[in-house]
Amino acid sequence: MQQLSEQVEIPLGDRSYKIVIGTSLLRNPQAFDDLPAARDAVIVSNTTVAPLYATQLIETLQQRYKKIHLVQLPDGEKHKNWQTLNQIFDAMLAAGCDRKTPVIALGGGVVGDMAGFAAACYMRGVPFVQVPTTLLSQVDSSVGGKTGINHELGKNMIGAFYQPLRVVADIDTLQSLPARELSAGLAEVIKYGPIADDSFVTWLEANMDALLERQPKALAFAIRRSCEIKAQVVGADERESGLRAILNFGHTFGHAIETGMGYGHWLHGEAVGCGMVMALELSHRLGLIDSAYAARVTKLIERAHLPIRGPSISADDYLRMMRLDKKSEGGEIRFVVIERPGVAAVRSAPDAMVASVVEQLTQA
Amino acid sequence: MQQLSEQVEIPLGDRSYKIVIGTSLLRNPQAFDDLPAARDAVIVSNTTVAPLYATQLIETLQQRYKKIHLVQLPDGEKHKNWQTLNQIFDAMLAAGCDRKTPVIALGGGVVGDMAGFAAACYMRGVPFVQVPTTLLSQVDSSVGGKTGINHELGKNMIGAFYQPLRVVADIDTLQSLPARELSAGLAEVIKYGPIADDSFVTWLEANMDALLERQPKALAFAIRRSCEIKAQVVGADERESGLRAILNFGHTFGHAIETGMGYGHWLHGEAVGCGMVMALELSHRLGLIDSAYAARVTKLIERAHLPIRGPSISADDYLRMMRLDKKSEGGEIRFVVIERPGVAAVRSAPDAMVASVVEQLTQA
Repeated sequence: MQQLSEQVEIPLGDRSYKIVIGTSLLRNPQAFDDLPAARDAVIVSNTTVAPLYATQLIETLQQRYKKIHLVQLPDGEKHKNWQTLNQIFDAMLAAGCDRKTPVIALGGGVVGDMAGFAAACYMRGVPFVQVPTTLLSQVDSSVGGKTGINHELGKNMIGAFYQPLRVVADIDTLQSLPARELSAGLAEVIKYGPIADDSFVTWLEANMDALLERQPKALAFAIRRSCEIKAQVVGADERESGLRAILNFGHTFGHAIETGMGYGHWLHGEAVGCGMVMALELSHRLGLIDSAYAARVTKLIERAHLPIRGPSISADDYLRMMRLDKKSEGGEIRFVVIERPGVAAVRSAPDAMVASVVEQLTQA
Repeated sequence: MQQLSEQVEIPLGDRSYKIVIGTSLLRNPQAFDDLPAARDAVIVSNTTVAPLYATQLIETLQQRYKKIHLVQLPDGEKHKNWQTLNQIFDAMLAAGCDRKTPVIALGGGVVGDMAGFAAACYMRGVPFVQVPTTLLSQVDSSVGGKTGINHELGKNMIGAFYQPLRVVADIDTLQSLPARELSAGLAEVIKYGPIADDSFVTWLEANMDALLERQPKALAFAIRRSCEIKAQVVGADERESGLRAILNFGHTFGHAIETGMGYGHWLHGEAVGCGMVMALELSHRLGLIDSAYAARVTKLIERAHLPIRGPSISADDYLRMMRLDKKSEGGEIRFVVIERPGVAAVRSAPDAMVASVVEQLTQA
């Protein structure tokens, strides 16, 4: 099969970078061209991903770096803390890494968040390269520069905005992804249609089967388009002052589901999928979109094997948890709604309406 | 006595800020004008400084912030680590601080480094204000944006470049400073003369007694001029790519002294004072400055009650430690030398010459 390679340029002035999306990239030295010279490089991965892909990446990078150090973190969100982060610092200091040593994240969102934060802090900042290996991290972590760790009192509370020099999204790595994680990634892909590009909804309707079959061409387009749209939104709002909020479509309801279920029961993407269904219904009740459009996007979410009914949490609990969300302001819950196909806005809504939406869309 | 107030503008594009230098500033709400509005503010201090100045600062800030939280860290460089940093995060999260909550550092360099790093990381960055209370931190930490903590395997290894919104240097706080710390601060003040402004050497010769007597007018000028020169050097080199190296005049020898003695025996400024004497002698041996100029600056260092003879460490140990310094490149030691009065450069030097300089300037 012919090799596939697409690129997205992220324009951020002197911190601009490109996302390379394609097949066989881990084996392709060209995917890592232009990275700064150094004696050492550090690959940060986890105990699940490293056995699958670290050897390939090390071989490819050996043409460029003399010493390549592999740091294998324990797998899972519960390890996204200072203790685990410090494993990266320990390894880098023990190896004598300096300010020029690039940190290369090989893994999903948790690995990317921790490796990126380590790169931001090690000697006050070293080069950072992302090699995301899940659909979610390929579409979501590739753009935005968010890095960080959790604190006992809150998720992602300690971190930095830190841009990579390059993102290399090798679609081959998605072949080993569990089906549930593929679907969770698709939730964030689907999101970009209703909030920013209605023609992408049409494309998704035509290509959902191909995506579920993991056809490289379809995956590459979906990832590229998602990154392009995210870059467009984030570009106008790098430090998250407000506009960026529309990227949280489905997330306000979704976070309530995650919190209410206790993190770890539903995948983030699953909660977002269901959260989007609720946000679509709310948009309809607010008189913004017709029920046919809400049904159309809901159908897409369902076809991606994502839940379209919430877990049995009471409407009062939803409201309480959403009010505690860090994005609420002065106790008022801010919802990302669809104003019309392809256009999102941030709005508040009457508690009774929100409660009614939640009740309608809760599992019997 | 009339209130004294001077300002230095630090031009950094959209991160520009001003340093306000003067008397009675902790009691003066105008010194904190223009800071962004928020419900909460967090003062980070330590158990030595907070009892002296926190009450004043809280009263002044109460006009602007509804809730002011005081975090008292343990005093000392040995506490500049993740565990102590986490005390700041714990307090901020427990108090429900959000992305708008300013972090205000009240103390010396260690407090400033930790509070600044906490501000850089809390929710990926909150507003930061410096209120330095030592001469060293007023001249050194006010400009450059360096924040961070130590790691078991190295000092200042984990950190961020993060600029404050404002620096308020209240000279009154220097009245309570131990004499040894005043002298240590003067080492960094004296430094700016030979590296960047020979007329400042002349001014220091005329005003050293006034500085040691802690006369506000002399202190204010010395602090302002030091900040101006540092800003000029750093302005051209915010991310420390090379030019900034001249600010390390005296520091290569100084770090060897600190390492050789075990940290904590000599104050950093004391080691730098003695290190400058060695660097001046090296500059003379390299044929750059005459012995009269080296003697003149050495005299100034001596008048500031700083050591001008090194501790009894062998020349071999000096060379070994300097080669390990993070600023050495490929095993070659890089010295900041004085090329001519008011002009510095970075140079290497023959080991035998360096050894001879160290032996000449070591305590009998």
